[in-house]
Amino acid sequence: MQGTSTTTPATTTDAPSRPATTYARTDRTVPTRSADRASYDTELVHSILDEGYVCHLGFVRDGAPVVLPTLYARVGERLYLHGSTGSRPLRMTGKADPGLPVCVTVTHVDGLVLARSAFHHSINYRSVVVHGVAHDVTDPDEKCAALDSLVDHVVPGRAADSRPANRKELAATAVIRLDLEEVSAKVRTGGVNDEPEDLALPHWAGVVPLRKGYEAPLPEADLAPGTDLPDYLAVR
Amino acid sequence: MQGTSTTTPATTTDAPSRPATTYARTDRTVPTRSADRASYDTELVHSILDEGYVCHLGFVRDGAPVVLPTLYARVGERLYLHGSTGSRPLRMTGKADPGLPVCVTVTHVDGLVLARSAFHHSINYRSVVVHGVAHDVTDPDEKCAALDSLVDHVVPGRAADSRPANRKELAATAVIRLDLEEVSAKVRTGGVNDEPEDLALPHWAGVVPLRKGYEAPLPEADLAPGTDLPDYLAVR
Repeated sequence: MQGTSTTTPATTTDAPSRPATTYARTDRTVPTRSADRASYDTELVHSILDEGYVCHLGFVRDGAPVVLPTLYARVGERLYLHGSTGSRPLRMTGKADPGLPVCVTVTHVDGLVLARSAFHHSINYRSVVVHGVAHDVTDPDEKCAALDSLVDHVVPGRAADSRPANRKELAATAVIRLDLEEVSAKVRTGGVNDEPEDLALPHWAGVVPLRKGYEAPLPEADLAPGTDLPDYLAVR
Repeated sequence: MQGTSTTTPATTTDAPSRPATTYARTDRTVPTRSADRASYDTELVHSILDEGYVCHLGFVRDGAPVVLPTLYARVGERLYLHGSTGSRPLRMTGKADPGLPVCVTVTHVDGLVLARSAFHHSINYRSVVVHGVAHDVTDPDEKCAALDSLVDHVVPGRAADSRPANRKELAATAVIRLDLEEVSAKVRTGGVNDEPEDLALPHWAGVVPLRKGYEAPLPEADLAPGTDLPDYLAVR
């Protein structure tokens, strides 16, 4: 499904760019089951990451796993994750910043797969799992750009149409970064995989697609006079 | 926001039932930030869990966190999580079953909160985080019932309208259970929280609700003649 070229690990704080077309496979990114659903294609990984609003950030605290929903954005081959300086994972990175081992997972549920047999029920989904070590973003310019990217990730074009963070707000916000090096996607698409002997059973079978996109925007009651809905919200 | 009563930890393999109205607070379930958004209300937790299709299962492997999207279902005060016997977390529980420390998180993104200031951009969401130790389900009756609940969690009423798993399929499926003891919800709702001095800025502000529900079901091409769309799919 993919070639065998690899990305070059980033060694500086500059976001890696111009990746090869696939991520290198590792022990952690080759699944033990449904390996045919795995992909290491950078474009596929990027598209899945860019479509999500929230990732699930996993880290280890006192030996036990913790998984928290977290805002994020992708910039080239790097993820930025948002949090206040009071949040647990960021305080852990903040001390001497040896880095925090994390796993970041983004999942889209696209449809419900209803088979004639209970066993073959499934979900059409696209997910990306990123393993790596996250670091606190301390450079002010990188932090400002990362915050812009976090806003633009939610609604592209929005950062330029809002008041930028001031010094106090910047200080109150923590951002961590995680480079996209050890990455895999997993995708299930298509219809039902029933057993041949089940096809004549009288159970309805098929896929129920989930609704995507968003409803009509709800403006605040106290918008400044003449503030219209921006084009970047009207198009979807 | 909640009272101080607690649930009784389960000591048997029977699913706990008739909980108190709130889960007990612990070090792990009291957040270090936005504590006003936290809730320990059992009904709220149940409603968030029941609405999700996929949870994010976190566990520790070789000292590093792993977060995988996983099918699940709630039965009373217990979660059942689905996987094949080849999957990593289940193999880990399978050996002598000391249990696998896990964190299970379910998140719904309900809306995009666009503030006049970049800093106050947010997401309306509802999430539940469950900490605990998961165990392999080995009792055949519990496993069959758990598989039914996994199917019914995706589409209520569906388990009765499908061919039940046979012995071979049951053997090929692993289920782990996790009791709801150390649990918290976190919810953000409502509009924008801009600074008073930003209200006159000419930026549109408001909430963009995300679409929910599902599209028209897509039947397989080879349904048995006379197989109509079931009522449980037509109602939504």
